[in-house]
Amino acid sequence: MYADRLARAAAVAGEAQVEALIIGPGPDLEYLTGSTASTFERLTALVVPASGPPWVVVPRLELAALRASAVGDLGIDTRDWVDGEDPYSLALDGIAAGAVVAVSDALPALHLIPLADRLGSAPILATPVLSRLRMIKDPAEIDALRRAGAAIDRVHARMGEFLIAGRTERQVADDITAAIIAEGHTEAAFVIVGSGPNGADPHHEVSDRVISSGDIVVIDIGGPVAPGYNSDSTRTYAVGAPSADIASQVAILERAQQAAVDAVRPGARAHDVDAAARDVLVDAGLGEQFIHRTGHGIGLSVHEEPYIVAGSDVTLEAGMAFSIEPGIYFGGRWGARIEDIVVVTDDGCEPVNTRPHGLTTL
Amino acid sequence: MYADRLARAAAVAGEAQVEALIIGPGPDLEYLTGSTASTFERLTALVVPASGPPWVVVPRLELAALRASAVGDLGIDTRDWVDGEDPYSLALDGIAAGAVVAVSDALPALHLIPLADRLGSAPILATPVLSRLRMIKDPAEIDALRRAGAAIDRVHARMGEFLIAGRTERQVADDITAAIIAEGHTEAAFVIVGSGPNGADPHHEVSDRVISSGDIVVIDIGGPVAPGYNSDSTRTYAVGAPSADIASQVAILERAQQAAVDAVRPGARAHDVDAAARDVLVDAGLGEQFIHRTGHGIGLSVHEEPYIVAGSDVTLEAGMAFSIEPGIYFGGRWGARIEDIVVVTDDGCEPVNTRPHGLTTL
Repeated sequence: MYADRLARAAAVAGEAQVEALIIGPGPDLEYLTGSTASTFERLTALVVPASGPPWVVVPRLELAALRASAVGDLGIDTRDWVDGEDPYSLALDGIAAGAVVAVSDALPALHLIPLADRLGSAPILATPVLSRLRMIKDPAEIDALRRAGAAIDRVHARMGEFLIAGRTERQVADDITAAIIAEGHTEAAFVIVGSGPNGADPHHEVSDRVISSGDIVVIDIGGPVAPGYNSDSTRTYAVGAPSADIASQVAILERAQQAAVDAVRPGARAHDVDAAARDVLVDAGLGEQFIHRTGHGIGLSVHEEPYIVAGSDVTLEAGMAFSIEPGIYFGGRWGARIEDIVVVTDDGCEPVNTRPHGLTTL
Repeated sequence: MYADRLARAAAVAGEAQVEALIIGPGPDLEYLTGSTASTFERLTALVVPASGPPWVVVPRLELAALRASAVGDLGIDTRDWVDGEDPYSLALDGIAAGAVVAVSDALPALHLIPLADRLGSAPILATPVLSRLRMIKDPAEIDALRRAGAAIDRVHARMGEFLIAGRTERQVADDITAAIIAEGHTEAAFVIVGSGPNGADPHHEVSDRVISSGDIVVIDIGGPVAPGYNSDSTRTYAVGAPSADIASQVAILERAQQAAVDAVRPGARAHDVDAAARDVLVDAGLGEQFIHRTGHGIGLSVHEEPYIVAGSDVTLEAGMAFSIEPGIYFGGRWGARIEDIVVVTDDGCEPVNTRPHGLTTL
């Protein structure tokens, strides 16, 4: 599988007139080799030339760990270095000065700037080159996303155990964290418990606010399941019966989320999917309350291509996987968001999350 | 404090002929504003011009969190943006095309490349500009490092509770993780339990290997204490009485570690400190077994400037803090490492770790 991905990466690099890809630690490296290396100040990099075999540059300290990935299995040429040596020259040995080189988007300035200096030209981003590969999930990847979706659904199904008036957001989040792991994730990557006014901040995480009856609570949770594919699902809960006004606004949000799901099919543009949700909310006078994009791709990263955002002309294809997560936010009062991960199929999409979408009263 | 740091950052930028610093999420941003923002694909950046007030660019979603840092307290000009807008133009508005701009080392290629495109020139690294500030710890920072050191020493003091023949490395690591938090850290940033042959890999983390009597075990652990300063300390343990040969080699390592500590004083170069440890090991025929640098700076990052490495002409000054951690590694058999964090004083250094340095038999 990794040999195939490396060959396809070299091929798409060639098609894009890129002479070599330089891939640092991060999801691109994990996708291409299975390595979860995470060195920061010492350079680890996979170099994939458009023609010829790839090589890796690795601190000698990290050699054993890297060889445990496909780098070892495939016998990829390994150029190890020790402190005091110049890893950039090792990375670029075999690449002509001034060549068009594309780097992974996570490569930090710490390494990109000296690489560009040695190369004598400014690298471009490998994202457009690699995202085409990473965006289209293969059956094993889709299966992993299904398992992740089912696992996070099981956590949402247990929300009544955790989300109880009188407890703090942090207490609820601690229980959810344990449940995320108990239900099959390798870690809890994020746990948002936004109660009452905190729900109006889409990126509120958790606080010591005590949840009380009458609160609307946004629960946005997820994490990876083996071999590294992520779940991400949001549901909105009412602690005690909600007002008719709030219930009707969340019902509109549910329609917006469903409209976006219904708009997903091969050939549709990411922009169209965003617009499908946005139009429902704008028509209902809630356009100003929807202050973010509709979704993001997901896989080895929680956020990756394709982004489901106004203006994006990315054309959807079968095998793409992304979130559909419109939200409405009333500053200082309450908020709601509904999020499923969907996988594009030949004639529409398959949501991997199946919990009820409307406001769930606990 | 943050106002002072921002003013000093602008001043050193001016001295370095840099027109503006662009600081993305990471320890530099935390140092300058207290913000622990961690956005990836949406740009958050602090821009510090050499003259004039700083500004921040932030996704509207993250505005509330950022304002909770010194950005809010100091009333720093905030330029928020929503998906679909161009954050790079916002960051660079007020900076002349082609200006010399320095970026934080953690800024990913994803943002650095479009920033460089808009700017029309290649940014340089801000590390040399900012590291001068961050390297010299103020009394509050030194106090935090002392608290971190005492906390991790308490964990090492309890090692006999955890490290017992018959248990796996992972079981031991799980107990250590809990103890790191129980002893006052906000998280366990890293837990290395390298038993027997795994100790010969300096960056081995943890495995399901069962520890048995006669094993030499490297325990390298640490994490942050409030407000974010890290501990990092390694001790080597013998499970059951060690052989005379191993005991004598670890005694040489202990001498090497002490020699490096003794070499620390204002005016010494980082190279000299590395050489002090290395010379002892080379003289004893163990030079080939010492396969990494002697140490790394520590503070808000576990690894930062100054690096204690051969060839470094960084001159030590009072207030610098770094690890002294020589090791010896016998591939496939065993390894040992001894690590303290030291703070440079007016006439030497103060180790913040005080546990016994030699091989501790459990």
